[in-house]
Amino acid sequence: MAQDFHATGGRSQELLYDEDVATPTHAEYARTLVERVRVGTLCTLRGGGHPYGSFCTFAMDGPDPVFLISELAEHTQNLRGDPRASLLVAQAHEGDADPLANARLTLVGECRPQSGEASARARAAFLARHPGAAYYADFKDFHFWRLAVSELRYIGGYGRMSWVELEGWRAAEPDPIAGAAAGIIRHMNEDHADAMVLYCRHFSRATDTSAATMTGVDRYGFEMSAVTGAGPRPIRLAFSQPVTSSADVRRELVELVKRARALTGGASS
Amino acid sequence: MAQDFHATGGRSQELLYDEDVATPTHAEYARTLVERVRVGTLCTLRGGGHPYGSFCTFAMDGPDPVFLISELAEHTQNLRGDPRASLLVAQAHEGDADPLANARLTLVGECRPQSGEASARARAAFLARHPGAAYYADFKDFHFWRLAVSELRYIGGYGRMSWVELEGWRAAEPDPIAGAAAGIIRHMNEDHADAMVLYCRHFSRATDTSAATMTGVDRYGFEMSAVTGAGPRPIRLAFSQPVTSSADVRRELVELVKRARALTGGASS
Repeated sequence: MAQDFHATGGRSQELLYDEDVATPTHAEYARTLVERVRVGTLCTLRGGGHPYGSFCTFAMDGPDPVFLISELAEHTQNLRGDPRASLLVAQAHEGDADPLANARLTLVGECRPQSGEASARARAAFLARHPGAAYYADFKDFHFWRLAVSELRYIGGYGRMSWVELEGWRAAEPDPIAGAAAGIIRHMNEDHADAMVLYCRHFSRATDTSAATMTGVDRYGFEMSAVTGAGPRPIRLAFSQPVTSSADVRRELVELVKRARALTGGASS
Repeated sequence: MAQDFHATGGRSQELLYDEDVATPTHAEYARTLVERVRVGTLCTLRGGGHPYGSFCTFAMDGPDPVFLISELAEHTQNLRGDPRASLLVAQAHEGDADPLANARLTLVGECRPQSGEASARARAAFLARHPGAAYYADFKDFHFWRLAVSELRYIGGYGRMSWVELEGWRAAEPDPIAGAAAGIIRHMNEDHADAMVLYCRHFSRATDTSAATMTGVDRYGFEMSAVTGAGPRPIRLAFSQPVTSSADVRRELVELVKRARALTGGASS
């Protein structure tokens, strides 16, 4: 399912953690991404079939993105001519970081204006995400449109990519702690660097870890970069069960420290 | 050339500054934007003609964007089937700011792999902008591609949009002070708020300005938001001649304060 040639130049490094560790699916990563980003590029067809990309705001209504667009806009005129479209959504990247390491997703399908109840649903979803759009939502040239997703491609960064199964996409829910993740990571790295060294030494094969930094956290577990004798290595550990709040994460991480300390007879490092 | 219906709800407000003030053309705004952004959405056609958007890095080589892409990537396979493409480039937006107020540009044309001297030029331009790409530039599945721009649409935010003339695009140069603009704006707003009140009172029709904030600066002049008796109003003033450096901007702004003070007989406000 995933191509990892460019991730490692064709060589694979021995994993220092359980390769079957609970990890979000690509459908779940993708569903979380579109929940956190409010803008994307809508790709449509001009008369004659030339592909045309335009900036747009969107909101998710279930598995489909919905839009509030003006009849005057190029993309709307294009869609009136041919409903085939795709939406590219990319994680915002910061400063000088490698933009190709970031996650992005292409939702492919047909995009059509909504009416009646479907329009009301799209409206509710869109205005919840873009309250500022309320002032032009009733302009007579604006309508709500829906991209009915039929295929989707997720790229999670180097070496993590797949065409996502539609059934999995429809069932996937955004990660419940995505909004809290940045704060959890900051807190762990600022105040609990010693706990993460213990996690790596006792619950992975990076037993010579001298320092560790949290790099990610999701409903199923968390990821660290461990400084080992062989250089920095990724470590992923799972929670005892899926979490739904930062309080759950805290409880899991505290429990894990206790277990690690018990293994060392109470020594803290 | 520009549509401004949604900018003002159809009503136009009296300008408080010279409507013929020197201002960058849309071609110049667009050329400056693509020089400042390193990523965009490449829109291509899948077999069968469905539009497909994908994230990509690019660099400008003259008026055309160039890419370093892998034969394994979806967009490359799409372009091998049909060279028609477009590139959407959007100004990065911050936090809760209205994303539709930001500038973006769609470059439309045909995208083809380069060889010989054209490839060497694309390579030099691309690697100057993305030095980190040097490590995969020679992988055998990667090639340099160029989107030969034949049409372009610029949207500068609400009410500023046009199809840009190709001749103007080819001649347009990026704004020489774009990289310094954020620093100049911060400095003026932090340390010279009084000077901006003088500019507005003496060189615009906002003679009752009580406070003013710089909102933009470019080679031809600068923009402020003036607090007037009728609310905040935009003011644009031109430099005495186009500038090419922050030192030039500083000299122009100091000269303008001197002229304003001379007009008030030396009073500072």
